Amino acid sequence: MAIKAKVSLAFFLFFLLSLLCSNLVISKEERDPEIKTCKHQCRQQLQYSEEDKNVCMEECDEYHRMKKEREKRKEQDQDEDENENPYVFKSKDFDTRIDTEDGRVLVLNKFNDKSKLLRNIENYGLAVLEVKGHAFVSPHHFDSEVIIFNVKGKAIIGLVMEDKTERFNLESGDIMRVPAGTPMYLVNRDENEKLFIAALHMPPLSASAPVNLEAFFEPGGRNPESVLTAFSSKVLQAALKTPKEKLERFFDYQRRERIFKISKEDVHGLAPKRSIWPFGGQFKGPFNIFTNRPSFSNQYGSLFEVGPSEEKSGLDELNLMLTLANITKGCMSTIYYNTNANKIAFVTEGEGDFEMACPHLKEKKSSSTSYHKISGRLKAGMVFVVPAGHPFVTMASKKNNLVIVCFEVNAERNKKLAFAGKRNIVSALDKRAKEVAYEYPAEKVDEIFERDEEFFFPYEEGEEEERADA
Amino acid sequence: MAIKAKVSLAFFLFFLLSLLCSNLVISKEERDPEIKTCKHQCRQQLQYSEEDKNVCMEECDEYHRMKKEREKRKEQDQDEDENENPYVFKSKDFDTRIDTEDGRVLVLNKFNDKSKLLRNIENYGLAVLEVKGHAFVSPHHFDSEVIIFNVKGKAIIGLVMEDKTERFNLESGDIMRVPAGTPMYLVNRDENEKLFIAALHMPPLSASAPVNLEAFFEPGGRNPESVLTAFSSKVLQAALKTPKEKLERFFDYQRRERIFKISKEDVHGLAPKRSIWPFGGQFKGPFNIFTNRPSFSNQYGSLFEVGPSEEKSGLDELNLMLTLANITKGCMSTIYYNTNANKIAFVTEGEGDFEMACPHLKEKKSSSTSYHKISGRLKAGMVFVVPAGHPFVTMASKKNNLVIVCFEVNAERNKKLAFAGKRNIVSALDKRAKEVAYEYPAEKVDEIFERDEEFFFPYEEGEEEERADA
Amino acid sequence: MAIKAKVSLAFFLFFLLSLLCSNLVISKEERDPEIKTCKHQCRQQLQYSEEDKNVCMEECDEYHRMKKEREKRKEQDQDEDENENPYVFKSKDFDTRIDTEDGRVLVLNKFNDKSKLLRNIENYGLAVLEVKGHAFVSPHHFDSEVIIFNVKGKAIIGLVMEDKTERFNLESGDIMRVPAGTPMYLVNRDENEKLFIAALHMPPLSASAPVNLEAFFEPGGRNPESVLTAFSSKVLQAALKTPKEKLERFFDYQRRERIFKISKEDVHGLAPKRSIWPFGGQFKGPFNIFTNRPSFSNQYGSLFEVGPSEEKSGLDELNLMLTLANITKGCMSTIYYNTNANKIAFVTEGEGDFEMACPHLKEKKSSSTSYHKISGRLKAGMVFVVPAGHPFVTMASKKNNLVIVCFEVNAERNKKLAFAGKRNIVSALDKRAKEVAYEYPAEKVDEIFERDEEFFFPYEEGEEEERADA
Repeated sequence: MAIKAKVSLAFFLFFLLSLLCSNLVISKEERDPEIKTCKHQCRQQLQYSEEDKNVCMEECDEYHRMKKEREKRKEQDQDEDENENPYVFKSKDFDTRIDTEDGRVLVLNKFNDKSKLLRNIENYGLAVLEVKGHAFVSPHHFDSEVIIFNVKGKAIIGLVMEDKTERFNLESGDIMRVPAGTPMYLVNRDENEKLFIAALHMPPLSASAPVNLEAFFEPGGRNPESVLTAFSSKVLQAALKTPKEKLERFFDYQRRERIFKISKEDVHGLAPKRSIWPFGGQFKGPFNIFTNRPSFSNQYGSLFEVGPSEEKSGLDELNLMLTLANITKGCMSTIYYNTNANKIAFVTEGEGDFEMACPHLKEKKSSSTSYHKISGRLKAGMVFVVPAGHPFVTMASKKNNLVIVCFEVNAERNKKLAFAGKRNIVSALDKRAKEVAYEYPAEKVDEIFERDEEFFFPYEEGEEEERADA
Repeated sequence: MAIKAKVSLAFFLFFLLSLLCSNLVISKEERDPEIKTCKHQCRQQLQYSEEDKNVCMEECDEYHRMKKEREKRKEQDQDEDENENPYVFKSKDFDTRIDTEDGRVLVLNKFNDKSKLLRNIENYGLAVLEVKGHAFVSPHHFDSEVIIFNVKGKAIIGLVMEDKTERFNLESGDIMRVPAGTPMYLVNRDENEKLFIAALHMPPLSASAPVNLEAFFEPGGRNPESVLTAFSSKVLQAALKTPKEKLERFFDYQRRERIFKISKEDVHGLAPKRSIWPFGGQFKGPFNIFTNRPSFSNQYGSLFEVGPSEEKSGLDELNLMLTLANITKGCMSTIYYNTNANKIAFVTEGEGDFEMACPHLKEKKSSSTSYHKISGRLKAGMVFVVPAGHPFVTMASKKNNLVIVCFEVNAERNKKLAFAGKRNIVSALDKRAKEVAYEYPAEKVDEIFERDEEFFFPYEEGEEEERADA
Repeated sequence: MAIKAKVSLAFFLFFLLSLLCSNLVISKEERDPEIKTCKHQCRQQLQYSEEDKNVCMEECDEYHRMKKEREKRKEQDQDEDENENPYVFKSKDFDTRIDTEDGRVLVLNKFNDKSKLLRNIENYGLAVLEVKGHAFVSPHHFDSEVIIFNVKGKAIIGLVMEDKTERFNLESGDIMRVPAGTPMYLVNRDENEKLFIAALHMPPLSASAPVNLEAFFEPGGRNPESVLTAFSSKVLQAALKTPKEKLERFFDYQRRERIFKISKEDVHGLAPKRSIWPFGGQFKGPFNIFTNRPSFSNQYGSLFEVGPSEEKSGLDELNLMLTLANITKGCMSTIYYNTNANKIAFVTEGEGDFEMACPHLKEKKSSSTSYHKISGRLKAGMVFVVPAGHPFVTMASKKNNLVIVCFEVNAERNKKLAFAGKRNIVSALDKRAKEVAYEYPAEKVDEIFERDEEFFFPYEEGEEEERADA
């Protein structure tokens, strides 16, 4: 009887234990819908053999497992790295969407993931393209509005309309608006130099949903796939009025990567014939960011801006401004903030630092808002975000100029208000308010805040321990 | 002592078990706020006796229980039905809002429930009205913008302004914009034929919150209720300057259903006097979708479109386009996508199939985007959604024409870009890019993609196993 | 052996128990990111000593603990207080952002917290300022658009541009638009009377993210802090071109509170020189809500409205309307609803009641929508919200007039449609529809709904039990 009791006790404990474990499992139910949808899509593919479907479903598990590992690792990193910063995005934050011998595409689509503080840009995404010499990017379209910026290099862009294609040369500094859904291709005109493109993806102005940065490629066969190969064979045969064998031969023949090298002759053959714009083409041609005089410029740096008021840029319909700041080595920008615009800044050259003031999430009975410094090291390829109203500053290293290209969204009516420099909002206070607010003689306040230079100043890098490493 | 030990062990195990159970219960805390709010509202109703309040609170539990069962069943269905599809909505996805002998109203308000992929239309809702011969839909208003489409039948619509009512005849194919908050009523003018109305509900353009599709009915008493009966008796007496008995007699007398049959004489009495528009009425009259020439039309099908540029339609203020596609039996539409617009498609007649290409949620190190087919059988009464940028195709059955009415939101600047037909985006590539992208001679590519017909083609239904059942 | 068994059993039970507890802990993982971010920000502050950092991190724990207690208490309150109402906000719902001897700022930023029903105003926030006689509010800016309404008192507002400040007198009833990011200060011109300001915070029209109501104060040192003190000392020295000692002396000297009393001479010195507008100033001056004739006015009450069509108000760019209703004691407003606008109502004077009809969250197979009364007592300082489409009514007490200031968002094309009064939507039905809908002779319906007065009527307060206490 003691044995019976022990056995039943053991069973009972085992039952408890399994109940516990299943409870733990149930609480992770959230993830299952993703795997379920992924596997469902695999089973849906009638053109797949049973083998293919199993391979597909294994890839779902694999992807899901890697995703959980990544997230676990991210949490660990956050624990280890005390300088983890929700406003800064490094290479590990980018997803690699395309990776071939001749080029790759990295995307940043997680502005909201790191912090609720970035809700005002959560619908935007940034893509970075690196295209090797004489490489061709296959025609594809997006469901988002795309603003292309040629960071460095010489390109040709082809934009497809209902019945023909318009081609444009893109030089370094060119801004090109690609309306939502427009099929496009790119070519690196240069034989040796890499082409670097930064592209902002945004939903059309009246919509409000995150972009997904998924490209729909037109060419392709089995691997990589054309968007067409998702359709049934019968549908394709009927729609294209082409017999099955001819179609299969065509698609089987498609083995090009998304980005691949083409011959010099083909590059020359793709050159734009003659500038169709402004003589009636459908697309606005590229607009170079250096076209107009810089907004600010002195020996310490320059700031070029192209905004929604510049109709030729195509940015007017998108409430967007592009800016390029070139900070001379050993120099800094002023401490300033955007009144309306949220800034997505992409460091394209050099290295340096930035600091930003952020209200602290802390609320005690009698203390008012306190501000904390968000800071980080900047390197080419990094992205940092500055929400509207937040003052910040960027400094170039002693060795190299720091070049930052910014997509400033919600740019209409935006002003840049500085704390230091010839015109600054402290000196702009009227005399009486200045003395009342600071309890200081107005001239002494002006002494501190005014200076002859505007927007860019010299900066002496001090001791290393003063800057927080990002 | 052994007995003591056993007893304490039993207690301990029981304690563990209850801890486990309460833990399971705690994790469902989310649902309680809903029941709490529901019951709170019941207790709030001072005009209810204690009995009424208890009945009300029981209904809260009942509703909540049914809701959980529905969701559990939905999950089970998803497990069983391997072809469950987040882009397709069948009758079980509609909620029945009104159900009387003479008519009913079904609503679809869960675009975002099935999948995060539909975030760009999550704020929209679709209502479908079936009104029997000579039936009258009681006056009511919504807090959303409403776009009514008369799918089939003859109706009268009355729209109330501050001091008078405007009445319009609605014929099959008529589009009528009902501004937010406008009280309206409907009549089926025909004695025998049912009237079918499809109505899109959307928030005003600058707002961004989901519509709730709740109608505020003006007439009513205890059952069904008038929105007025929610107010205290004293308030009603003072506002309407009417003694209590007279008011109670009035409200007690209101026993009409939301939709009820009226006499032929009343139907004639409700006929619009004379077209007040365009001579100064406040509302834009109906605009028939067949007014303008079809955008595409051949023996295989026709596509009629009314968009934001058509001022007389009232759609300009809503960034909306309505389209009606009539695909001849045994024919198909081309494979195409909307550059900007998101499509909510309502099948009004016939049956057939559709297929859509969707980027797959899978991301391996070196493979690029792959596309999967979403497909389904179409039947009258079903709704399917096609997000911008996604190519899709619809095919009619051999037996009947397939008629689909679409509400295309975010329609400004939208273009329909096709993959097959006279004008298609593959043939539109310039010659050199075509040869480079497809590694095929340009003429051979054109041979495959070009054809004389545009937008609608013949389609031969093939073997059943080729189509996935939805 | 029995002892061994007992010990291993004990271990096993202990293991089970700890598994259970850790499971309970794991399920609260959501909260950790907040504490983690808070503590991270503390560690980031290089100007803090180790002690300061520890104090800072303790404050994070403290804040987090208090926050959880508040939420627990809120849940308990909801259980205890059967009249808890998601549309009403009392003083306990406001957060105290600034609390000094000479003034305080309370903010309401949780419209969405109480109920999903308020999603359409979830991005808005309301701030209430109380400023004692001759007190000065330090210069600060917000990242949101701000609409200031002077409820009561005499103020001076200073708005800073890039290079100068514009000052305006604000009288009771003045509406002042402060564009996003504009640094501003306020002064209570009166020596004795308190100044009461209500300010609506909203995101710019094309953005769609919640406002955070965090002020960036320019002056300050260590406590309270200036936004500048978030930056490194080296950065400040370089940007301000000021040596370290001079800067530290300046910031250490800043000890003023956010709101502090100033001398009569300083108040006079801050008076606006001469009205610069409309002669070219950058800001539109204040627009008084009583400027235009009231929309409705009789002996029972008045309604003043300033809307998006009034260009001089600056409200046109924000799709906003401000209204002020003054209901004579013992009187009521009509039962009415806004067709488009969502109303955020702030009671500034007197007391009374309100009632609102709301569709009930209940759905049975064959019953249609039912409506429930939301009601509450109104007192000065409370806020209540009325979503578009929802009919409501407000009544003043017998003792005092009831004054309510409303910010009505999404105001474009809004109409106020009443159920009772000279013009009401029931009488506005055409005769036939009236008789059909109500099954009553049209004259009798009109008898009930029509009356000579418009919008404001007398109201006799009845027995107490008829009104639900809020």
